Amino acid sequence: MPKLVECVPNFSEGKRREVIETIVDQIRNRKGVRLLDYSADENHNRMVITFVGEPRAVREAAFYATKKAAELINMEEHKGAHPRIGSTDVIPLIPLEGVTMKECVQLARDLGKEIAEKLKIPVYLYEEAAIREERKNLENIRRGGYEALKKEITKPERCPDFGQPLLHPTAGATVVGARMPLIAFNINLGTTDIKIAKRIAKDIRASSGGLMHLKAIGVELKKEGLVQVSMNITDYKTTPLYRVMELIKAEAKRYGVSVRESEIIGLVPLDALIDASTFYLQIRDFSPDQILERRIQK
Amino acid sequence: MPKLVECVPNFSEGKRREVIETIVDQIRNRKGVRLLDYSADENHNRMVITFVGEPRAVREAAFYATKKAAELINMEEHKGAHPRIGSTDVIPLIPLEGVTMKECVQLARDLGKEIAEKLKIPVYLYEEAAIREERKNLENIRRGGYEALKKEITKPERCPDFGQPLLHPTAGATVVGARMPLIAFNINLGTTDIKIAKRIAKDIRASSGGLMHLKAIGVELKKEGLVQVSMNITDYKTTPLYRVMELIKAEAKRYGVSVRESEIIGLVPLDALIDASTFYLQIRDFSPDQILERRIQK
Repeated sequence: MPKLVECVPNFSEGKRREVIETIVDQIRNRKGVRLLDYSADENHNRMVITFVGEPRAVREAAFYATKKAAELINMEEHKGAHPRIGSTDVIPLIPLEGVTMKECVQLARDLGKEIAEKLKIPVYLYEEAAIREERKNLENIRRGGYEALKKEITKPERCPDFGQPLLHPTAGATVVGARMPLIAFNINLGTTDIKIAKRIAKDIRASSGGLMHLKAIGVELKKEGLVQVSMNITDYKTTPLYRVMELIKAEAKRYGVSVRESEIIGLVPLDALIDASTFYLQIRDFSPDQILERRIQK
Repeated sequence: MPKLVECVPNFSEGKRREVIETIVDQIRNRKGVRLLDYSADENHNRMVITFVGEPRAVREAAFYATKKAAELINMEEHKGAHPRIGSTDVIPLIPLEGVTMKECVQLARDLGKEIAEKLKIPVYLYEEAAIREERKNLENIRRGGYEALKKEITKPERCPDFGQPLLHPTAGATVVGARMPLIAFNINLGTTDIKIAKRIAKDIRASSGGLMHLKAIGVELKKEGLVQVSMNITDYKTTPLYRVMELIKAEAKRYGVSVRESEIIGLVPLDALIDASTFYLQIRDFSPDQILERRIQK
């Protein structure tokens, strides 16, 4: 089995087509990696690229994209609502096939060190690759965004993990890490009462004592006349989709509200869906080897 | 996309290892097909082989396995409880990838014609490949087994679709057809009352007015202290797993009985599981392209 790592870097540019394409070119044209998707958001002035490949090629592609972003994006001039600290804001590495999380952590640290040494961009390590416990959580690293970090980077608690405590003049700083694939999962409730969505979000998310590895906020969908619990599941193996769904159903019931529908934004790992079907169908001793397509591939 | 057909022929030999292996060799050693599985049952004195490949190679492999079985298995001496009419009893062809059901029907008819002409074995066409409406159902073709067919084959209603109305002296007759992949799905009920399993099986199966494409019987699991509704779903796209599960749950409720667990015997097509997860998770507008692994493969 070939080793396969996914990389989903975020860049602080969502408007200038030429800049976007030039950065994407660093990945598109590199041997050993495959560009799966990229999308730029004008409102957030931000873009995300999804690509996969064998570990060494992924590291190389991420490095050259970061280098190009440092040349083309000037954080001193960047405006955007989304919290960000650099032209290449965050680089998550995700083990997909034949690669352990430990290997991905090492890959993230090697990449971070290279970016700091060769590009002079200070690097923070997050999630599984974090060296400092409080930096597991990306929000702690990005607190206050580029503007706040510029003032506070010399403070010991904001000192980068690689490189000097000094922002790169245009590229700012970068966060590199390793994590499980996350699932963006939204559940729409049959009510217009945003208080209910916010209350449920608060009750079920990890940060306020709910399910581990679950981030959730309540959002109003004015056009649809519904409210939504908008979520990220950062470890779907520990916190499976079905558990999130069943818990929200139970919480919504106390308000006499039903689940109208759900949506998965972007990609979802296959075993997250298989897991849900074996749960609901109560299948005993199910083995993925029983899946016809998988047997054929072997 | 390469064209891929699955073939699951059944042979009337479940005991003699050498005979079994020699028949399997016809498939194992043929270019263009891949042997996925074979299993022989001593009690039923019967074996089933599962293999896949491109249509022409599958047809060729099935033909040579049938030829070998005619040489090695003498139906005059065969004993077995399972209804059967020939040394190669039934050859189902299943469209998997890049092949329509219509193409599989044509493949089945071509194969049937070839077996009748070259091997002098009379052939019946069943399921989607059936020419006579009443032969869609395999049970109608095999009624009374080899012994009854030997007496009745000259009757107009039992006349084969290809070949003369005369059994092959050793190989008997063969059934060839095309069908969807079937799913063997069993649901165990938390009761020892076999009457409940039998009653539910009767209420939900197609033959007594229940769900289309569903065969069901009630079975006692003495060791486990449970009863089981044992099923074959012959078209899981029309009759999905979740509908079967939910209907059985509802029917069981009237007896105050719960579903203890289910099991899938053998292989299951991936989209049958995806379908169940999107149903239970209420996912709106889900596209299989959102599955990470599928995106990577493209």
